[in-house]
Amino acid sequence: MHLKRIIGIDPGSRLMGIGVIDSDGRYNKHIYSDTLRLDGSNPIPERLGIIFTEVKRIIEQYSPDEFAIENVFMAKNAASALKLGQARGAAICAAVTSKLDVFEYSPKEIKQSVVGKGAADKQQVQHMVKVLLNLQGRLQADAADAMAVALCHAHAGALKARLQGK
Amino acid sequence: MHLKRIIGIDPGSRLMGIGVIDSDGRYNKHIYSDTLRLDGSNPIPERLGIIFTEVKRIIEQYSPDEFAIENVFMAKNAASALKLGQARGAAICAAVTSKLDVFEYSPKEIKQSVVGKGAADKQQVQHMVKVLLNLQGRLQADAADAMAVALCHAHAGALKARLQGK
Repeated sequence: MHLKRIIGIDPGSRLMGIGVIDSDGRYNKHIYSDTLRLDGSNPIPERLGIIFTEVKRIIEQYSPDEFAIENVFMAKNAASALKLGQARGAAICAAVTSKLDVFEYSPKEIKQSVVGKGAADKQQVQHMVKVLLNLQGRLQADAADAMAVALCHAHAGALKARLQGK
Repeated sequence: MHLKRIIGIDPGSRLMGIGVIDSDGRYNKHIYSDTLRLDGSNPIPERLGIIFTEVKRIIEQYSPDEFAIENVFMAKNAASALKLGQARGAAICAAVTSKLDVFEYSPKEIKQSVVGKGAADKQQVQHMVKVLLNLQGRLQADAADAMAVALCHAHAGALKARLQGK
């Protein structure tokens, strides 16, 4: 299986994790990661514009082959779900207008894939992301989650390829 | 007060109302209206891409001065709020990437502005949109709501201009 470049997104209306990795499903390499910090005192439309523009900029800079994003079904309440949905919508628009296929994974699928346990805590996810990508030092939680999404997609793709006998 | 072109949006993940009007706050003219119908069996990312592209196309075609969208705080549940938020985020991204200022109005503000009563029903809104824009025949509900958003913004702008003594 050849090396694929994957951009992973952990969506949020205040903090958005973005990670880019290269992977063949077994071997994984960290290419880029960052946390987009959105000033909560700025109007929502301005923040959505920043998300769209920044995700698009990173897509143009790193030319990923595929786009993976965490699929959140649960939220504290309808108001926070609406905010999260808007942020997610902005990131997905950046992907589809760049002609990238979008793949979605639930938090449980991501944890299962990266830690081997659907109910893993944040520390375990951060630890395994560091191990899988051979990273040193501290890792910001949202950036780690974004790389976990990308790794989950890489593993899912590898599994699919194996099942299909490729 | 000079004539302003306003695009109004009634957001939804299945049906999205879009309306364009010219207004000086008293005189209002219908320019364009339609309902974007999104196939619910299509994947969400594809639908968000269609919303973004279509809203952007209408902005480019009609060159509105300002963008107004209904602000929904309530939803049946977190899952539907998330879907609605994504659709809203896609439409707002189309506006901000076109350098349009985005204005938001609650359903209550819109009804109050168009019908004179915050608790008006859909039929009253449709009736008053037809009266205010001098439209004949049947009006699709979501397109009517979108024009109501645009009219609400036109009235709010006129009020603000009057208050400021312009």
